[in-house]
Amino acid sequence: MIPDRDAILTAARRIQGDVRRTPLLAMPGWGLLKLELLQLAGSFKPRGAFNRMRAAGVGAAGVIAASGGNHGAAVAAAAQSLGVAAEIFVPEIAAEAKRALIRGFGARLVVGGASYDEARQASEARAAETGALMVHAYDQAEVLAGQGTVAAEWATQAPDLTHLLIAVGGGGLLGGIAAWHAASGVTLIAVEPEGCPGLHAALAAGKPVPAPVGGLAADSLGARQVGGLMFPIVARLRAAGRLESVLVADGAIRAAQRALWAEARLVAEPGGAAALAALLSGAWVPPPGARVGVLVCGANTDPGSVAGDAPCPPG
Amino acid sequence: MIPDRDAILTAARRIQGDVRRTPLLAMPGWGLLKLELLQLAGSFKPRGAFNRMRAAGVGAAGVIAASGGNHGAAVAAAAQSLGVAAEIFVPEIAAEAKRALIRGFGARLVVGGASYDEARQASEARAAETGALMVHAYDQAEVLAGQGTVAAEWATQAPDLTHLLIAVGGGGLLGGIAAWHAASGVTLIAVEPEGCPGLHAALAAGKPVPAPVGGLAADSLGARQVGGLMFPIVARLRAAGRLESVLVADGAIRAAQRALWAEARLVAEPGGAAALAALLSGAWVPPPGARVGVLVCGANTDPGSVAGDAPCPPG
Repeated sequence: MIPDRDAILTAARRIQGDVRRTPLLAMPGWGLLKLELLQLAGSFKPRGAFNRMRAAGVGAAGVIAASGGNHGAAVAAAAQSLGVAAEIFVPEIAAEAKRALIRGFGARLVVGGASYDEARQASEARAAETGALMVHAYDQAEVLAGQGTVAAEWATQAPDLTHLLIAVGGGGLLGGIAAWHAASGVTLIAVEPEGCPGLHAALAAGKPVPAPVGGLAADSLGARQVGGLMFPIVARLRAAGRLESVLVADGAIRAAQRALWAEARLVAEPGGAAALAALLSGAWVPPPGARVGVLVCGANTDPGSVAGDAPCPPG
Repeated sequence: MIPDRDAILTAARRIQGDVRRTPLLAMPGWGLLKLELLQLAGSFKPRGAFNRMRAAGVGAAGVIAASGGNHGAAVAAAAQSLGVAAEIFVPEIAAEAKRALIRGFGARLVVGGASYDEARQASEARAAETGALMVHAYDQAEVLAGQGTVAAEWATQAPDLTHLLIAVGGGGLLGGIAAWHAASGVTLIAVEPEGCPGLHAALAAGKPVPAPVGGLAADSLGARQVGGLMFPIVARLRAAGRLESVLVADGAIRAAQRALWAEARLVAEPGGAAALAALLSGAWVPPPGARVGVLVCGANTDPGSVAGDAPCPPG
């Protein structure tokens, strides 16, 4: 079921004490940045995780999720905050540093196969065995509604924006935001790395289809296929001329990470900088009169990785 | 002349298009952070620099300042923005990375002696020769009024705070904020590193006196002696029981830098994390019912330096 505004407002009330209201920063020439990278656990993901857990209720068996990255950290953080057990299944390729982040929130970490798909299957088998509550990384109604709260919050902070730039992986974030803006006048710019064009592929095929996963931001935006729940609403917005789908090169993403540090002292991970990359690289050009918002949605990276060529004094 | 609220409001109007309105982030247990580290040029310093330059006017000879750090970068950034020439005198000990930051804003960089004092003297001699406008790092009325705009802005964003934690170097920032709060009910907590106790020494002596300069935050908070303009108003607030002066150890500053990254994905330089360090280390304990604001005032550090023991996934 696709969430509507009521579902998103219900989610917002439900998770109000759990997540942070993230601030805006006006950057002339870039638009109004929504600093969701300052969210608990370093990305927008706790919004959906808390909403799923609070809405469905968590029993003695705790929660379970499959993820090597931000979703795993978010579910672990939410479980720690709610005082329930969490098991996070990661693929063998998950970086040690991300495993440490997940463990740091007190979750039990299980290596569940070679790929994300294998880890997901292992987590589902385990959930069937233990009765733990599954929190999907993107394709679950409560998760979509939770991610949609970022749009509701943003709209109260900056009601006059006309165009919002949003990075897309599995599409839970875009789907939640699209659900909020289903009947508004706002246009969404869905930004994917060239190496992870899942939404592009789905829009071309008319339905979610498998797509390549690679490049700099695969860690956070590398879903094999966008979610079935988000697709209809995104396709409908596109048909209405209120959603554009653009691709950005890895070089543009790296340049946006460096610009965020050099100009605003913000550390964004590649996926977190992808939306801004579309604007800075010219992959998307605002129409005259546009009032642009950019969601900077994740910071879970080595902070030293963003310095690049920018002059950054030592501590 | 000590600025009053009118002078600060005049400054705020004057520099409104020049500097950023920096956002707040509520962090349960820490209070309400004012993210002044996201300011242009990575610290609060452009507020004072722009106000001095716009109020006094800049002639064909441009502007001049002595600083190896944030003030130099701020004057260079302001000069670039206003389209005037800047000469920044740095001591020989200034780090190459901070020199690159200053040069990056298009300023002419001059190595002006072994110590900051020598650089300052060299800059004054040069100003007498060229007629350039001197922008002092802290002890100038327009600079104090400019730094005071952060307090005026903060008060409109969060009018109900009762205690504000502020880091102190030469005291331009504290002086400006104290001027704004001269007749309010707010209590200021002035935080200095143990290695740079200029305000402690001045309060003990009843006037600004030379004090040691050393430790982790000397780069940004290491003034030999606090300013003569700020001292009377700070001493008056203290006599009224509305200003506390506390010291923090370097270990507490480093821990606060790491906590800012681990909990909020913010990169603060040592001086920028010092105010929070007082709270997190218990050097200052909020009284019951306090509504605490913390100014995080600078980010000009190697971003890789803040990761510490916190688990931080690679990009």
